[in-house]
Amino acid sequence: MHELILYIANKNYSSWSFRPWIAMDALGIPFEERLVPFDFAAGNPEIKAISPTGRIPLLQHGTLKIWESLSILEYVAELYPEVGVWPADASRRAVARSICMEMLSGFTGLRSACPMNIKRKPAPLDNLSDAVHRDVDRISSLWKEQLAVSGGPFLFGAFSAADAMYAPVVNRLEVYGLTKDSQVLDYMARMKEHPSWVKWRDAALAEPWYVAEDEV
Amino acid sequence: MHELILYIANKNYSSWSFRPWIAMDALGIPFEERLVPFDFAAGNPEIKAISPTGRIPLLQHGTLKIWESLSILEYVAELYPEVGVWPADASRRAVARSICMEMLSGFTGLRSACPMNIKRKPAPLDNLSDAVHRDVDRISSLWKEQLAVSGGPFLFGAFSAADAMYAPVVNRLEVYGLTKDSQVLDYMARMKEHPSWVKWRDAALAEPWYVAEDEV
Repeated sequence: MHELILYIANKNYSSWSFRPWIAMDALGIPFEERLVPFDFAAGNPEIKAISPTGRIPLLQHGTLKIWESLSILEYVAELYPEVGVWPADASRRAVARSICMEMLSGFTGLRSACPMNIKRKPAPLDNLSDAVHRDVDRISSLWKEQLAVSGGPFLFGAFSAADAMYAPVVNRLEVYGLTKDSQVLDYMARMKEHPSWVKWRDAALAEPWYVAEDEV
Repeated sequence: MHELILYIANKNYSSWSFRPWIAMDALGIPFEERLVPFDFAAGNPEIKAISPTGRIPLLQHGTLKIWESLSILEYVAELYPEVGVWPADASRRAVARSICMEMLSGFTGLRSACPMNIKRKPAPLDNLSDAVHRDVDRISSLWKEQLAVSGGPFLFGAFSAADAMYAPVVNRLEVYGLTKDSQVLDYMARMKEHPSWVKWRDAALAEPWYVAEDEV
């Protein structure tokens, strides 16, 4: 049994669960996964008992409970300093954190109009607001800026917390057809080929739970 | 001249500026403050030139620009490991980060209905939504929980990033009359007596800019 237990919700929909999961899986940090499915009408009362915020993901280490995706990543970065959760260079690490916190605190236009949905067949949405397009523009430009500095293949060279925090956005840009930028599409293709991405995707596709109406 | 330059906006209103400012001032981290006032109708075009997100606060260190309040705090925590930006104990530090990120990513009910406003005369607001009350309840319980563990006077004992991230909430609970809980009010009183709070407050009160209609 692993020491670290990561509580996650449905793999098809839970973008916040995907972030720490893909980082820890991609960086080889050992953990036990516990999936607590939520149903969209009522929520799952089990989650309240697990998490002080009533939300998931949550990392448990002995009696310690850590909530918020990025706080989980900071904790495992301290536990496993050698795996490269963050870039080794202090300046690059600072930029990586700024980008991760920009994701954590913002892009609400994109997040509310275009939820992560692994099962969704790619198709554009009508009547997207300007806020969605502004979010996509900002994300595209920050990805391209960091890829230009690092040389890729991931935002800061090797796969890091920054790629993990934006992984659900890769799905959103794909399934809602939000970009035609070739550099952005190339980065998305590299993310979708990552073995940890493939593992999460296949598990999401196999999930038996709730499917939104526009996918039926 | 200091090496670190912290760009902030109006002290009366800019809750995100207040967070890194009060942490750095309270912890004795030397920095030069540059205030870029925004006006509420048009914004300030200067900010676009300073910040890659078009938003403030922003910390500049040489050519490096760091945005997002909490990313600034992580950066100065690395530059000044001895001042205690974070609790020294790894488990307590993890909880402190979870709480800070909960602030960064959430409490949107409280944040949108009850903006920070240092000049406002304390008076309750009518018709507050359930979301505001739920946010206040969650914040009260997390403050009291951490004060019980640490013994105070601040959330994790000595003043830390966690107090800084919630400093604007102290103002909100006060000026909109959102709590009668004596433990919460005692913590708020300690925050408002902190010399760095007093320094920011006095500067905010002296600002010449825009005042919202309900204060005229």
